[in-house]
Amino acid sequence: MDTETAWKHLTDRVRELKDLGGIDGLLEWDQHVWMPAAGGAYRGRHKALISRLLHEGLVDPALGEWLDTVAADPATAADPVRTAAVRNLRRQRDRACKLPASLVQAQAQATSDGFAAWVQARGSEDYAAFAGPLSHIVDLARQEAACLGPVAHPYDALVGRHDPGMDLARLQGLFTPLTAALVDLLDRIRGAAPLAPHPVAVPVDAQRRIHRRVAQALGFDLERGRLDEAHHPFTMGVGPQDVRLTTRYFPGDLLAGLLGTVHEAGHGMYEQGMPEALAGSTVDDAASTGMHESQSRFWENVIGRSRPFLAWLQGVVREEAGVEFDLDAVYASANRVAPSHIRVEADEVTYNLHIALRARLEAALLGGDLSVAELPGAWDDLAQELLGLRPERPSQGVLQDVHWGAGLLGYFPSYTLGNVYAAALSERLSADLPDLWPRVGQADFAPVLGWLRDKVHARGHLQDGAELVAALCPGRDPVAAFVAHVEARHGRLYGVARG
Amino acid sequence: MDTETAWKHLTDRVRELKDLGGIDGLLEWDQHVWMPAAGGAYRGRHKALISRLLHEGLVDPALGEWLDTVAADPATAADPVRTAAVRNLRRQRDRACKLPASLVQAQAQATSDGFAAWVQARGSEDYAAFAGPLSHIVDLARQEAACLGPVAHPYDALVGRHDPGMDLARLQGLFTPLTAALVDLLDRIRGAAPLAPHPVAVPVDAQRRIHRRVAQALGFDLERGRLDEAHHPFTMGVGPQDVRLTTRYFPGDLLAGLLGTVHEAGHGMYEQGMPEALAGSTVDDAASTGMHESQSRFWENVIGRSRPFLAWLQGVVREEAGVEFDLDAVYASANRVAPSHIRVEADEVTYNLHIALRARLEAALLGGDLSVAELPGAWDDLAQELLGLRPERPSQGVLQDVHWGAGLLGYFPSYTLGNVYAAALSERLSADLPDLWPRVGQADFAPVLGWLRDKVHARGHLQDGAELVAALCPGRDPVAAFVAHVEARHGRLYGVARG
Repeated sequence: MDTETAWKHLTDRVRELKDLGGIDGLLEWDQHVWMPAAGGAYRGRHKALISRLLHEGLVDPALGEWLDTVAADPATAADPVRTAAVRNLRRQRDRACKLPASLVQAQAQATSDGFAAWVQARGSEDYAAFAGPLSHIVDLARQEAACLGPVAHPYDALVGRHDPGMDLARLQGLFTPLTAALVDLLDRIRGAAPLAPHPVAVPVDAQRRIHRRVAQALGFDLERGRLDEAHHPFTMGVGPQDVRLTTRYFPGDLLAGLLGTVHEAGHGMYEQGMPEALAGSTVDDAASTGMHESQSRFWENVIGRSRPFLAWLQGVVREEAGVEFDLDAVYASANRVAPSHIRVEADEVTYNLHIALRARLEAALLGGDLSVAELPGAWDDLAQELLGLRPERPSQGVLQDVHWGAGLLGYFPSYTLGNVYAAALSERLSADLPDLWPRVGQADFAPVLGWLRDKVHARGHLQDGAELVAALCPGRDPVAAFVAHVEARHGRLYGVARG
Repeated sequence: MDTETAWKHLTDRVRELKDLGGIDGLLEWDQHVWMPAAGGAYRGRHKALISRLLHEGLVDPALGEWLDTVAADPATAADPVRTAAVRNLRRQRDRACKLPASLVQAQAQATSDGFAAWVQARGSEDYAAFAGPLSHIVDLARQEAACLGPVAHPYDALVGRHDPGMDLARLQGLFTPLTAALVDLLDRIRGAAPLAPHPVAVPVDAQRRIHRRVAQALGFDLERGRLDEAHHPFTMGVGPQDVRLTTRYFPGDLLAGLLGTVHEAGHGMYEQGMPEALAGSTVDDAASTGMHESQSRFWENVIGRSRPFLAWLQGVVREEAGVEFDLDAVYASANRVAPSHIRVEADEVTYNLHIALRARLEAALLGGDLSVAELPGAWDDLAQELLGLRPERPSQGVLQDVHWGAGLLGYFPSYTLGNVYAAALSERLSADLPDLWPRVGQADFAPVLGWLRDKVHARGHLQDGAELVAALCPGRDPVAAFVAHVEARHGRLYGVARG
């Protein structure tokens, strides 16, 4: 078979796999937004079927032959799209070939059951009711790691599927200095005068308008997407023209929900900015989960918690809700540092400590150093050590996140990768756009989104996330960029900045 | 291969096809309820992919072998479930095997184009803009009939896919006496004192509560389903535990939307009542499209427009909305007979005349006795003949329904089958439950639903719709039952009842 024929077959197959992924996205979105609880059993079957079809499409020997044909052509090396396509697809295919269909199907069922068990267990503060399903999920994840091996640690196999090239050793090299710097900053902040929370109460009806207006102003296209409510907000790409954000509304605290919408809009704009012209190449995809998270964190934290953004928001809230707020107080509140139990409510300084906690526990579970029965105690001890707080009930601790019940072991580190990538990218963006902040103050977000489209979104998955950040920010350690960011924002706000 | 192994393979396959159908249902539901317009292109791809997978699953030669093995075993004849399974699945498979993929693809494209052309043409009252796409759809339908043949008339092949065993000759035997009786009753009603419309205005918020309360009272399980809004209401089974109704709310006219919810709840309760224990057998399915429609029509018309139901509703509306209505006036309004242009707004007496008109025109188009160019004139003449009205513009006539543009030729007769089946079933139900109406007046619908569950729902697709009605109502002509129903209700209301 000649290269062009093989490439044609390959891209047709990739498009089909992408369509199956879009269908799976709708099944998942619906499950969290609209599905009646009783629908869970069949939804599990539906998702298992799609997983099996995805698996069959990847392990098909014909796909291996097309890949070999394209890879063997010397012209491929000179074509960055085909080179990336071969690399990306080989990874997916190798992974699928190594995982038996029975394991994949068992995982789909276990995570569907696990999600339902988590909802139930969290509602009744009953960790014991979740321990069985979670043990099953952990067992299956260990089996998965064993199939994918050889790796230095089972956790590597799980982390690598979200952020290729990342492993436990590299994560430790990142979390060790980051945790030290954050604990040090947190100590200094604890010694400074505390800042007060300053929630802005806005009726939910007006909040709905404000959320939509803000998402649109940033550049999220609501004609090619939606914004709905979900208990645990997330973003889902059903197709490149159909990207769905979810959020929450808190009547007493506009920003608590709104910054979530800004976060999800960051994910959504990345999805909407994928290079559709490269459809079928696997390059029309995120560079990594960490890179996806960098987009949401950039908009939520770098932009959304900035003073110029909040100054613009002041006018929006006045117009939409007739509510006035004190900019200084709201800026201080939005950047207030206060260790708390719940990750999704954490400030920028303590957030990564929540992740460090989870990453350590996950690695210990996967490595067999910690049992599911011991998990709640280990969680509480680590929360005490890193955050200085001990959960009073499971929903404040081990049952707070959906991830483990949904089978997303090894996912948490991508949040921290997102934070540090966002800091590095924002340094480069500030250098390229010297009038960044005056523009943000005027809600002129187009140059910011334009920069991200050009440097990040349009490049899709030509490079992995870490490579792309290194290429955009040569010689800059993203952890150092993040520490500089929190020192400059939070250290300064509390009058304890260092460096 | 032994019979039990073949049966196991067969039921596994059927479960998988059913899961694909559920996924397709969610794609369709979402498209009409939540999907952003721009998502349509990819939704088309997603649906085409599911269609292809369904087709591949049906034409797979292995399925044919399993069917042959089960059918050849003498024990199968003694097992009604397996006998029905072989018959039902053979029909689906034969159809899939007989239709070339090129035709199926051409039809998918033609109906996608046809739907868009219909929307455009209806908006601009321009039938000529629809004639080309419709001609193509009719040509393809004739090709389809030729592939599925041999049949006495091309229309038979199209009608039979919705109501197995039904054909043009049987439909003519049904429509001829039905039309004569309805035209006769309509003539008498025209000579009587007219009844006034009496809409009940209720704020939409209260209507939402009322719709949910009514659907639940009838027996629709909202824990295993949903109720949402859609421009054109429909019901979708995503799975047996996840059945979704859609409806509309008219602030000025509660019943205009509420009877739609009652109708959809009828469909939904049938879906929720399918015999799940028979999953994988094809027997956990509707007996026919006409039987599905009988369930919605029974609840909407026989129950929902009855005086005892409306008397109960009076109290519900008082409680939920603080609105009083005049029971006599509302009962008369709900059963008012007034020929009008639009089928979906028609009363029980004229509704089947709208269907008779469409069935005649469809059969003539398929048989080559009528050209697409002649269709509008033929429509207007028939409307004059049957309804005594001549459309003033295409949207009042030939362009009013979505069906033809969407390729649903041969679907309309199922609506009338539903009406006449509902009348026959309600006669039998009244005989079995002598205190039916006092119970309805007390919102004690459980015995009614219980009867339907037992006699109809639990029997799934053991028999085709017409067979099941004949078995439940031996010796009773459903057309005669329907005519008796409208004479008793509408004839009496207008003081012109006969017989």
